[in-house]
Amino acid sequence: MKKVYEYIDRNKDMYIKWLIRLCKQPSIAAQNIGMVETAKIVEEQLSYINAESEQVSTSGNPVVYAEIQGNTKKTLSFYNHYDVQPEDPIELWDSDPFAAEIRNGRIYARGVADNKGALLARICAIHAYQKVYGKLPINVKFIIEGEEEIGSPHLEEFADNHPDKVKADANIWENGMITNDGRLHVTLGVKGMLYVELRVKGASMDVHSMNGAVLENPAWRLVWALNSLKNDKEEVLIEGFYDNIVQPTDEELKLVDELQLNEKDMLEQYELDDFLLNLSGLPLKEKLYMQPTCTICGIESGYTGEGAKTVLPAEAKVKVDFRLVDGQDPQYILEQLRKHLDDRGYDDIEIVTMSPVFASKTDLDADIVKTVIDNVEEIYDMPPYVMRSTAGTGPMYVLSQKFGIPSVGFGVGNEASMVHAPNENIRLKDYVNGIKFAAKVIDEFGK
Amino acid sequence: MKKVYEYIDRNKDMYIKWLIRLCKQPSIAAQNIGMVETAKIVEEQLSYINAESEQVSTSGNPVVYAEIQGNTKKTLSFYNHYDVQPEDPIELWDSDPFAAEIRNGRIYARGVADNKGALLARICAIHAYQKVYGKLPINVKFIIEGEEEIGSPHLEEFADNHPDKVKADANIWENGMITNDGRLHVTLGVKGMLYVELRVKGASMDVHSMNGAVLENPAWRLVWALNSLKNDKEEVLIEGFYDNIVQPTDEELKLVDELQLNEKDMLEQYELDDFLLNLSGLPLKEKLYMQPTCTICGIESGYTGEGAKTVLPAEAKVKVDFRLVDGQDPQYILEQLRKHLDDRGYDDIEIVTMSPVFASKTDLDADIVKTVIDNVEEIYDMPPYVMRSTAGTGPMYVLSQKFGIPSVGFGVGNEASMVHAPNENIRLKDYVNGIKFAAKVIDEFGK
Repeated sequence: MKKVYEYIDRNKDMYIKWLIRLCKQPSIAAQNIGMVETAKIVEEQLSYINAESEQVSTSGNPVVYAEIQGNTKKTLSFYNHYDVQPEDPIELWDSDPFAAEIRNGRIYARGVADNKGALLARICAIHAYQKVYGKLPINVKFIIEGEEEIGSPHLEEFADNHPDKVKADANIWENGMITNDGRLHVTLGVKGMLYVELRVKGASMDVHSMNGAVLENPAWRLVWALNSLKNDKEEVLIEGFYDNIVQPTDEELKLVDELQLNEKDMLEQYELDDFLLNLSGLPLKEKLYMQPTCTICGIESGYTGEGAKTVLPAEAKVKVDFRLVDGQDPQYILEQLRKHLDDRGYDDIEIVTMSPVFASKTDLDADIVKTVIDNVEEIYDMPPYVMRSTAGTGPMYVLSQKFGIPSVGFGVGNEASMVHAPNENIRLKDYVNGIKFAAKVIDEFGK
Repeated sequence: MKKVYEYIDRNKDMYIKWLIRLCKQPSIAAQNIGMVETAKIVEEQLSYINAESEQVSTSGNPVVYAEIQGNTKKTLSFYNHYDVQPEDPIELWDSDPFAAEIRNGRIYARGVADNKGALLARICAIHAYQKVYGKLPINVKFIIEGEEEIGSPHLEEFADNHPDKVKADANIWENGMITNDGRLHVTLGVKGMLYVELRVKGASMDVHSMNGAVLENPAWRLVWALNSLKNDKEEVLIEGFYDNIVQPTDEELKLVDELQLNEKDMLEQYELDDFLLNLSGLPLKEKLYMQPTCTICGIESGYTGEGAKTVLPAEAKVKVDFRLVDGQDPQYILEQLRKHLDDRGYDDIEIVTMSPVFASKTDLDADIVKTVIDNVEEIYDMPPYVMRSTAGTGPMYVLSQKFGIPSVGFGVGNEASMVHAPNENIRLKDYVNGIKFAAKVIDEFGK
């Protein structure tokens, strides 16, 4: 691989230019800005590595799909996305979010960390490999969707309609980061999600609050219904919620324990005195990475302006996200939630569901896991931190566990990459290392 | 009184013009529109009845105060207000809210029912009485504040600084209405109020909701805290909340039972199937008029827009109004609320208090009660409905019960007067009857 690494070092300015070009093209799925143009650029950049690409239509933005034939029948697929988060609040950016400005060894752009940098690193890795060795040792597929930042509403549709395109021996997931102490995060799973909005209706209009004496108050009913869902010990009270959870093994807990979570910094950042339930150490990390949640994301009813207004609200709404772990079926939990409310006299509360997603977990003994983990030191000089699961959610399940395909995530971001925030950036050094590491993984997986 | 009534009938067009003039002048306290101009017009109209008026300054809008000397030492005070509610939603008005247009025997204007009509009826009554008899049989005082529609924040300050101006043998309260079956409501009390906003803080900023696993969620803490305040049987769980309530006597309950509450119409209007707790009949009316409440008027936290946003809110707020009844001290209940929250680990929840108001109740055997009730039939051909207390709140306490002054309310509105709503109106017939009745009360109270 020495020759490949040297080729990458010699051509890094070109690879940085490729990245800048992609980052300069806005691609905000939430606002439908630049999606068509971006898919075109991605296809063009895939042509640099002789990939046969196409835009596979879905009910939403098309998936850019590409294949490259290699020397063996082994196939590795790469999942990435060409859409990015909106750039606001724009006034907090130190340079234009789509200028892709380089300062102090970093490139600043919306989407550069999440995840145009990781996508280009993979394309460039293949480019360098081909320049040095010609054909790849394995078949490679790219599945590059355009709706990840709006919850991947049509990725499952794509996968179900094109199982042949999804088929692979292993998958490399979109992204990841390098910790402050320079170690690569290798991700072997994500949490799932059930996101619901509960809506309670009262009178047909807001009414003078003196009538609160005799008319039902939807805000109170929502409070009581919510109180029945989770107690202040953080226990979710929906029957069956915890039943099918696959508990982490000792080996998995050991991996969780090895993860670095700087508790003091995190508390300082958010100006809090303690974590929930006064947790720290392994129990804190276990809760963050391996346990399900039930979080109120938003609640609204009645008058919320300045001062006093005496009104009995006509309606009350809450948004709740359940982060799910391995074994939990979002559809089953939705049914149990319905039953829970019905059983307590809240059968009038409407449940609107958004984006049900299964958790996904890759077997620790899958080949790709060994291939990735064992080769990190060659590029990063230190072993990786292995994330059994992220605390967050992604659509990994519909491309991997659902089809029995192991998936491993790594990328080119870092702890200060400001993902989803102003001044998103990556270090150029990490980008170059990311290209080398992707090449190494392709090479090793072909052995 | 026949001569007085005849004078009123002969001059009713002039009295309507006086009302139109006052209604044409906007006086929206919430927006500080026209307050100075309106106070001036009120003073001018008081000069028609040879009242010595002045504007008594407070920390807010001045109180227009006036006195007229009569033939005895007995003094009757009138409480009114020269401010009105904002007119929005303006698009739902059939004529300009400040045009004071007459259509089908009604005069339409913001504030005509609440309560410029009642104020003018009293001025006109005195005018007619003076024209026929010269001097009044009693001393009369007017206390006309300019902040009733924003919660009378400085009326108590006025009363405490000017006990000599408040002093009276009896008080006539601002307003009231005539029912659909033509009977006058005579009001002998109002509920009090403690309006609070509870504020819970979490992290210093909104955070990705995956952190809901380990960081405190202020929305959840607010839900649990609220749930501890009132259960779904509508029982307020704050210690001591009900302790000092003066329970209604059988006589009072009888008066409540006589009130007409068209349950079917009310449910239809609000598109509801049942009243709270399936109440009807006397228990429903007792709850509405004689029992305290704890009503969520508004609640807000986190993301409340369309669709899904996965955010852990930094803050949660709720507005709660407690309508209080005779015997309940808002300050004591505020202290008990603080203790209730502290005892349950919610000592970090901030309580912001607005407008604490005592309930007020006039003794049934006060002279003015008899004077008013016994003379209703002469004008309205039917006995009144006696409201022991309104379901709503007003600043009656600080001008009456606090000083041992009995207070009785009646006015010129009706059930379709659209108070605080578009197309506010009164019937011209009710205005004329209101003038006659005010004259009759002055005459009888002087006997």
